[in-house]
Amino acid sequence: MTQTEIAIKMVLDRWNGSILNLNKHLNELSDEQLQKEIAPGKNRGIYLLGHLIAVHDDMLILLGMGDKLFPELNEPFIKQADKVATQIPSPAAIRKMWAKQNDVLQEKFAKVTVAEWFSKHTAVSDEDFSKEPHRNKLNIIITRTSHLQYHSGQIVLLKK
Amino acid sequence: MTQTEIAIKMVLDRWNGSILNLNKHLNELSDEQLQKEIAPGKNRGIYLLGHLIAVHDDMLILLGMGDKLFPELNEPFIKQADKVATQIPSPAAIRKMWAKQNDVLQEKFAKVTVAEWFSKHTAVSDEDFSKEPHRNKLNIIITRTSHLQYHSGQIVLLKK
Repeated sequence: MTQTEIAIKMVLDRWNGSILNLNKHLNELSDEQLQKEIAPGKNRGIYLLGHLIAVHDDMLILLGMGDKLFPELNEPFIKQADKVATQIPSPAAIRKMWAKQNDVLQEKFAKVTVAEWFSKHTAVSDEDFSKEPHRNKLNIIITRTSHLQYHSGQIVLLKK
Repeated sequence: MTQTEIAIKMVLDRWNGSILNLNKHLNELSDEQLQKEIAPGKNRGIYLLGHLIAVHDDMLILLGMGDKLFPELNEPFIKQADKVATQIPSPAAIRKMWAKQNDVLQEKFAKVTVAEWFSKHTAVSDEDFSKEPHRNKLNIIITRTSHLQYHSGQIVLLKK
């Protein structure tokens, strides 16, 4: 394994480990618990999970991997704050989307080559990328893993 | 810049960005707010910040960068749960340790070479490392950034 391959493995391992860690917590939370606020006056668990799906869906676009799976989640879970949308999917439906999305992302990530991981993501111009080569696809995984961990630390608070 | 250098830059940028992000929140929190629980019955902000310092201090050992700066924090902030220790440092003292530690870590990280980042950390044997080359020093930064983000998502809940 080259150093570059090792670096990619470490980043993907951390992504996958973060997904598994949150799944473990989600499996221990009831649908009723997911509907609760993580702290008084703060976001509900269900909102945070919908938010994660919507943000991860956008990764498909940034990584040039095709269309979003659930574009309808952008409005209620990214554009709008929690409790603004009058109707959002049920906890059961959100859990199903989350599981489906994780399968799709895992399958797509496994096929990416070293050269592709270090190629530019779709939101940066050729010109900017030539000056800032770290704005590549692998960096999308790094930053979204941070985001996932941030909200995982909040969702876990719903546990008794 | 080689792909390996780019990978190291991305990992360190994410670490530094995570520290800056938490600092921004800490600056907006009063000492009184830091003493509060992040959610009813959960850890206090001050405990989480002490915990982060203690965990980051252990990185110095794992990275072979010398002694811990604040070894006295291991007992109350890692071994013990919140509210077990009868006496812990004041919020002002903890903030000062946090700032000092960030300076020290940043200075030390900046001097590490590519080869060193991909060399084994101190808690893995030569034999295991030969089979699992991802158990290197750079991976310590990756996993601790995850941990930092996880607790940052909790500390931010103390904001009004």
